[in-house]
Amino acid sequence: MRAVEHDIFLADCPARTTLDLVANRWSVVVLHGLGQQPMRFGELQRRIGGISPKSLTETLRRLEDNGLLERSAGRWELTGLGLSLLGPVRALASWAEEHTDALLEARDRRGPTRSATATGDLDVGS
Amino acid sequence: MRAVEHDIFLADCPARTTLDLVANRWSVVVLHGLGQQPMRFGELQRRIGGISPKSLTETLRRLEDNGLLERSAGRWELTGLGLSLLGPVRALASWAEEHTDALLEARDRRGPTRSATATGDLDVGS
Repeated sequence: MRAVEHDIFLADCPARTTLDLVANRWSVVVLHGLGQQPMRFGELQRRIGGISPKSLTETLRRLEDNGLLERSAGRWELTGLGLSLLGPVRALASWAEEHTDALLEARDRRGPTRSATATGDLDVGS
Repeated sequence: MRAVEHDIFLADCPARTTLDLVANRWSVVVLHGLGQQPMRFGELQRRIGGISPKSLTETLRRLEDNGLLERSAGRWELTGLGLSLLGPVRALASWAEEHTDALLEARDRRGPTRSATATGDLDVGS
């Protein structure tokens, strides 16, 4: 089926473009929502707080162009390919919901000194 | 432990900022790489084809600021919090590697007509 093995560690691997498509805020929320049930545009917009019509339109179009979504009887729904992504998407969304407080605490502990001391702080040699 | 439940469907939920942090190309590749073994900056840069020193520096700093990475004896490594993200990150990276051909085929099937016909194509009502 595959001519070459894809590897996200390789510079020109097209799997990186796939990551750009699926690994972003709105793709995750839209896929997660449509994994619960097919929805019309307006239903989706109400389900996803704070998304603009423009962002929702662009996200749907990009996911549709890549074969992850389709419209049926006016409702957006996941294709088989989209369904195969639902496990990773749900895992990521759940992780974000469960660990956001830990991230906020880490930022609090680090405090405001970071930005002042950050420059030149990283070992870019070797 | 948590004062409020986080929910990525809510407009002002901080879990959305968490998604922005973890769900992007370089975060996924860096976390995946450091999940294989701790590495120095230069080792990481060689492991991750095509990443610029600037992008790598920014990614490491952001992940460190959020408590996902730390440096020990000159090597970058995952914290406990970072380790907890490794499952979702690996699932997403594997999905991208395994399904990129299917996405490319979907784009090929759709062809170049999409951009010409896309405007006004979506049912933005109801």
